[in-house]
Amino acid sequence: MSKNVLIIGAGGVAQVVAHKCAQNNDVLGNIAIASRTLSKCEEIVASVKEKGAMKVDGQLTAHELNALDVNATVELIRETGSEIVINVGTAFLNMSVMSACLEAEVTYLDTAIHEEPDKICEQPPWYANYEWKRRDEFKAKGLTAILGVGFDPGVVNAYARLGCDMLDTVESVDIVDVNAGSHGKYFATNFDPEINFREFTGTVYSWQNNAWQSNKMFEVSRTDDLPVVGSQTTYMSGHDEVHSLSQNLGVANVRFWMGFGEHYINVFTVLQSLGLLSEQPVMTAEGQEVVPLKVVKAVLPDPSSLAPNYTGKTCIGDFVKGTKDGKEKEVFIYNVADHKEAYNEVGSQGISYTAGVPPVAAAMLVATGEWDAKTMVNVEELDPRPFINILNKIGLPTRIKDEEGDRPVSF
Amino acid sequence: MSKNVLIIGAGGVAQVVAHKCAQNNDVLGNIAIASRTLSKCEEIVASVKEKGAMKVDGQLTAHELNALDVNATVELIRETGSEIVINVGTAFLNMSVMSACLEAEVTYLDTAIHEEPDKICEQPPWYANYEWKRRDEFKAKGLTAILGVGFDPGVVNAYARLGCDMLDTVESVDIVDVNAGSHGKYFATNFDPEINFREFTGTVYSWQNNAWQSNKMFEVSRTDDLPVVGSQTTYMSGHDEVHSLSQNLGVANVRFWMGFGEHYINVFTVLQSLGLLSEQPVMTAEGQEVVPLKVVKAVLPDPSSLAPNYTGKTCIGDFVKGTKDGKEKEVFIYNVADHKEAYNEVGSQGISYTAGVPPVAAAMLVATGEWDAKTMVNVEELDPRPFINILNKIGLPTRIKDEEGDRPVSF
Repeated sequence: MSKNVLIIGAGGVAQVVAHKCAQNNDVLGNIAIASRTLSKCEEIVASVKEKGAMKVDGQLTAHELNALDVNATVELIRETGSEIVINVGTAFLNMSVMSACLEAEVTYLDTAIHEEPDKICEQPPWYANYEWKRRDEFKAKGLTAILGVGFDPGVVNAYARLGCDMLDTVESVDIVDVNAGSHGKYFATNFDPEINFREFTGTVYSWQNNAWQSNKMFEVSRTDDLPVVGSQTTYMSGHDEVHSLSQNLGVANVRFWMGFGEHYINVFTVLQSLGLLSEQPVMTAEGQEVVPLKVVKAVLPDPSSLAPNYTGKTCIGDFVKGTKDGKEKEVFIYNVADHKEAYNEVGSQGISYTAGVPPVAAAMLVATGEWDAKTMVNVEELDPRPFINILNKIGLPTRIKDEEGDRPVSF
Repeated sequence: MSKNVLIIGAGGVAQVVAHKCAQNNDVLGNIAIASRTLSKCEEIVASVKEKGAMKVDGQLTAHELNALDVNATVELIRETGSEIVINVGTAFLNMSVMSACLEAEVTYLDTAIHEEPDKICEQPPWYANYEWKRRDEFKAKGLTAILGVGFDPGVVNAYARLGCDMLDTVESVDIVDVNAGSHGKYFATNFDPEINFREFTGTVYSWQNNAWQSNKMFEVSRTDDLPVVGSQTTYMSGHDEVHSLSQNLGVANVRFWMGFGEHYINVFTVLQSLGLLSEQPVMTAEGQEVVPLKVVKAVLPDPSSLAPNYTGKTCIGDFVKGTKDGKEKEVFIYNVADHKEAYNEVGSQGISYTAGVPPVAAAMLVATGEWDAKTMVNVEELDPRPFINILNKIGLPTRIKDEEGDRPVSF
């Protein structure tokens, strides 16, 4: 049984991961939190202690780490005796942290695809640009790496797999992500603005009729009557999971749809049209070289500051459409999370909560051996049932809606 | 007779000033152009030569100058034998250039109020914060300084004075500035974005019922049916001329109204609400200190780049309302300028043209002695008639509209 977890990152998602690891430290062992800024790690430790979240006695420690420094990361993994690394730092770190895990021979988990600071929306499938190139190394060493095991990507990949398992043939998987919550600010992003905007500034890749299709952001929309959050318009967006599900499921159509209000779209359009979302540096009249997107990030509210006043719910799920017993059938497999409940439990808002709980569930499954794949995998390559069962217990219950009604799912 | 002109600045307005000085160098003598960037001065010299704008033989030279360096500016004034300095550089330079003119004992002209980089919309009247503090020095030395002698402020101050001279009593002066032109870009400002936005991010000061009133931008609007450009909605804005006219005319109400389209207002509101128009530095996640407004400036089109494709007209004028012979009377004294004509003549768009022609008219009046005030003045303190007469001849004809019709004005 693997144990002792090193959490890399100290943002809103890391906070959730730390709380959830603490709540399950009978399975996971000691917990170390590391990021560039020691004080942010210490604040998370204090928050976990304040909530009395540790299930059993154990270590919970804060560490300063530049995770781009592979040697330093290896050293910290060894020093803390960590056998599982949960990487919820910025998306620019994935490849270095992965290198450290390979060298230290421990499990690697992350929740978002690797990005290079100066590139956006590279050629699909995105995982083939970086992560999958290292699959053979994990396989050769018999080490487990589970890629993209947040909510989306992550739980929605498990939902896609489950939907495929339920039907005889599958024509399409449409993942819908709606945040119907309200943070009360003029404008804010729910996670790192830099990563958030980078998702929407490039080409929207979708998998349609077994081929990549390119669109622009806000070009294609759909409107669904969703459980709890009601009628919602979502827009076809580029997103990590399309790039693995398209390769692993054998389904002709895999699309991702993100909900946006008119106000968000207006602000985004203004910033985008002016060039303020660019990841490429510009020169000011005074000769200072500046990346506009980093300045936009600097003026926006810190996503973690939104939590105390966040109200409302998120609804994220998969419409899986195909046939069963010769008849057309569509299922919607989904979770609804509540911002306020998340804050009360772990001090973070619902978006961080949905992203932070799943990697802990995955770590628990690795610890117990059920998901210890001994190679690099995406979530849809693993059995979704134990994952959904754990999530039901630790805060993210799954439901299913089809012609037979709307009901909880467990196995 | 004063002669030889030093132009400080090398933007779109400086380009117009240089062309117009060249067209009138029989009166104004030699022309020197100086700015931080020598190549921009050289481009202006080349443009003047290309148009064959020099009326008579004379010198036209380009110089590199940091105009914040008073000694260097004094030296250049002396070296070029300039007796008139037209300061159309950034608004941050006024006080240094003024110091240089006092030391070199030459005439000082500018077109916009002094600003300090880290302050916006200081206490009214703005001129009292910087410029007017040095009035006694100009008076003591018998030197002429004409403040704010562009179009607005500048020509509109002369219009206000003329309107007051035409009526028996005056209740209000409302200055309306409408640019009904089109540059074909998603968004652009017509002059330095930094200065442009700074005008609208702070308190809107107006002079009403003989007292300062504070409003927010876009809080108060009016709609007028204007000559040539038709029905236009304008918004009460803070602007230089309100701060001198209120002190010099003895009129109870002086307001400035600027025309904005819905698109401009939307972009402005988004940028302003996010904090991207702030002149105060922010810190990026990487620890770089950046002034957001300077980054916005860096991503927007260079105002001078708009000229070749700019079409349409501007209409700027003063509604002066009061009584004449015991009856209520309102006059609208105005100019209409055409972007394309401006570009064809001097290579700049209409906004630069309206700002750049008046200081040359003023320089000509200083040169001939008619406006050689031997102290510091704002335009409304001078006789408006010779100014309007010269402007009629050199590209900015004045018209008047009242109950007797719409007709040209000359004296």
